[in-house]
Amino acid sequence: MKTLSIRFGERIRELRKERALSQEGFAHMCGFDRTYISGIERGLRNPSLSAIETLAKALSITVAQLFSGL
Amino acid sequence: MKTLSIRFGERIRELRKERALSQEGFAHMCGFDRTYISGIERGLRNPSLSAIETLAKALSITVAQLFSGL
Repeated sequence: MKTLSIRFGERIRELRKERALSQEGFAHMCGFDRTYISGIERGLRNPSLSAIETLAKALSITVAQLFSGL
Repeated sequence: MKTLSIRFGERIRELRKERALSQEGFAHMCGFDRTYISGIERGLRNPSLSAIETLAKALSITVAQLFSGL
């Protein structure tokens, strides 16, 4: 079983790509560094609630939707 | 509009009380300090993804359920 961090990162990458956004463009929308987005997508980071909220808002979904099925 | 941290804290408190758990008992289940649970419930903390996962597991719900409607 993949860890939640890995599954969360895969979900972020999937949603970002659906929106045809580069890591750099998505990072800019979030106000984050590209390397932070890269780390999240690879499951290497442990984002805070406020960072998770920022990611969800940039993806125009709720936090519950972001975690749906994970 | 309350911040997500506030709404998240209220949700945690509500679910903890539904389970008739004290802050201390719930903290022990999570492996956290009681003061950390208290801070989360008051919206003063910014829990990480791994902490959020721990809270959800201790409440026997998914992370998506924890955020449902917030």
